[in-house]
Amino acid sequence: MELKQYLNEMKANVEAYIREYFEPKIDPPTLHEAMKYSLFAGGKRIRPVLCITAYEACGGNYKDILPQASAIELIHTYSLIHDDLPAMDDDDLRRGKPTNHKVYGEAMAILAGDGLLTEAFLMFTKNLDNNIQDKLLIEAIRELAACAGLYGMVAGQAMDIIAEGKTPQKETVEFIHKHKTGALLKASVMIGGILFGASQQQRVALHTYGRNIGLAFQVVDDILDIVGTTEELGKPKGSDYAKMKMTYPAVYGIEESKQIAAKFIKEAVQAADVFEQRSGWLKQIANYLLERTN
Amino acid sequence: MELKQYLNEMKANVEAYIREYFEPKIDPPTLHEAMKYSLFAGGKRIRPVLCITAYEACGGNYKDILPQASAIELIHTYSLIHDDLPAMDDDDLRRGKPTNHKVYGEAMAILAGDGLLTEAFLMFTKNLDNNIQDKLLIEAIRELAACAGLYGMVAGQAMDIIAEGKTPQKETVEFIHKHKTGALLKASVMIGGILFGASQQQRVALHTYGRNIGLAFQVVDDILDIVGTTEELGKPKGSDYAKMKMTYPAVYGIEESKQIAAKFIKEAVQAADVFEQRSGWLKQIANYLLERTN
Repeated sequence: MELKQYLNEMKANVEAYIREYFEPKIDPPTLHEAMKYSLFAGGKRIRPVLCITAYEACGGNYKDILPQASAIELIHTYSLIHDDLPAMDDDDLRRGKPTNHKVYGEAMAILAGDGLLTEAFLMFTKNLDNNIQDKLLIEAIRELAACAGLYGMVAGQAMDIIAEGKTPQKETVEFIHKHKTGALLKASVMIGGILFGASQQQRVALHTYGRNIGLAFQVVDDILDIVGTTEELGKPKGSDYAKMKMTYPAVYGIEESKQIAAKFIKEAVQAADVFEQRSGWLKQIANYLLERTN
Repeated sequence: MELKQYLNEMKANVEAYIREYFEPKIDPPTLHEAMKYSLFAGGKRIRPVLCITAYEACGGNYKDILPQASAIELIHTYSLIHDDLPAMDDDDLRRGKPTNHKVYGEAMAILAGDGLLTEAFLMFTKNLDNNIQDKLLIEAIRELAACAGLYGMVAGQAMDIIAEGKTPQKETVEFIHKHKTGALLKASVMIGGILFGASQQQRVALHTYGRNIGLAFQVVDDILDIVGTTEELGKPKGSDYAKMKMTYPAVYGIEESKQIAAKFIKEAVQAADVFEQRSGWLKQIANYLLERTN
């Protein structure tokens, strides 16, 4: 199977799960619609796919962990809705469509985000056919909450807001990337391993893999903000640059940023060696994330 | 022991736990400060106390569940921060102090709320001395996430926003109260029972107790908004009324609202009978919640 086909199939599995999960009517209908609007605005579902790929690299079957993998997408979606708010990054477009608050208003967008974040923990604790040990499920919840919150994404977004307009500094841009984007990507990979009950050696490998692709991912995003087209990006080109966001290209320039991203990906690919014949998708996904810069 | 002393002692236990938990430095410091500002703005900690009281009514010792009881307060606090935002209820004062966004700005207030909500699940899964069965802990997480989110608080706040300024309707005001305030109070009580591994009979009793005090609590709050003083309330008297919020007094008038609250409390007190000699605090707390109207 080609990578593209694998990614599309896993994406379809995750989307089908989320779609069915959100099928039953929730009151008030506006809240329900607002959440579904952003959930189905065309995301690549890379976090759930990474979670699944890590789980299968350990020897599992993705069907066991669809609720957990999908829950990570709920958290990612909430973060996009809140990040786009006027008080935050004040973005009107996301993936080429009007942002949530542009369609549903600020109050409903805040609540749609709060609802998705909270529901993520309900979805995450759905144990299909009791295939996951309770102990491992709790450990995975802790990884998710830590990396989505004060030791990850929320802290990264807070630093991003605080740093806006200030002179770019290496330490700050590294903090932002590691926390804002890197932490949840790393968690996605780790959760796959935790839920399987991976060995210590496998966990270390997944940690190295997840950390490195997480860092590379945001560097690539920063580069694309400058070299990509508005059509490719789904938002105005150079919008981070215009807001004086602290990015890798702002600190290192574009060429050195590309080299940094390539180095992260190389380390990720090497770490995946531990999984031997099951390492294929992990390696291909890592390389695919980098290719976006070319 | 007098009720006042019991409430103060349990409140102090919860506050000490939260204070110690948030002692270690979190980056960025502004985010950390913003969360602590609202966490220590003088709440009564009634939700954690209810959780503890239910757990002890079943036969447990509060020390086992301090993380879980305290985590509920983090969720309550996040909801206050987000509810006060300009896009939501636009309140400048809370418990007599400037609201979070008035001090830290809107972006940091949104993130402080997101951070508290996410951290609540990390705190909740801290299993002190492994005194709680993993299975029960997961069941309790599900109760918390359901009642704080789309089947409770978030849905209630969304309906509250949608209903603002519209002609008061019984069904709508009941939906708002049951979800916005009632659900988390009910969950606080239920979580105490779940974490102990309460019997089916005890769970049914706690559910009836929790549902009724939850409903009474918001009716009493609505009444106090009209008959209380600004000093007692910590916010301008009549502020809900001025915003044309859908409240019990708006639908039923003050006298009938008082009778409704009294009926809820009577049912809660009766339900607590199941706990026989351990029912004292549950009953006294229920009556105390009602007394605020006199």
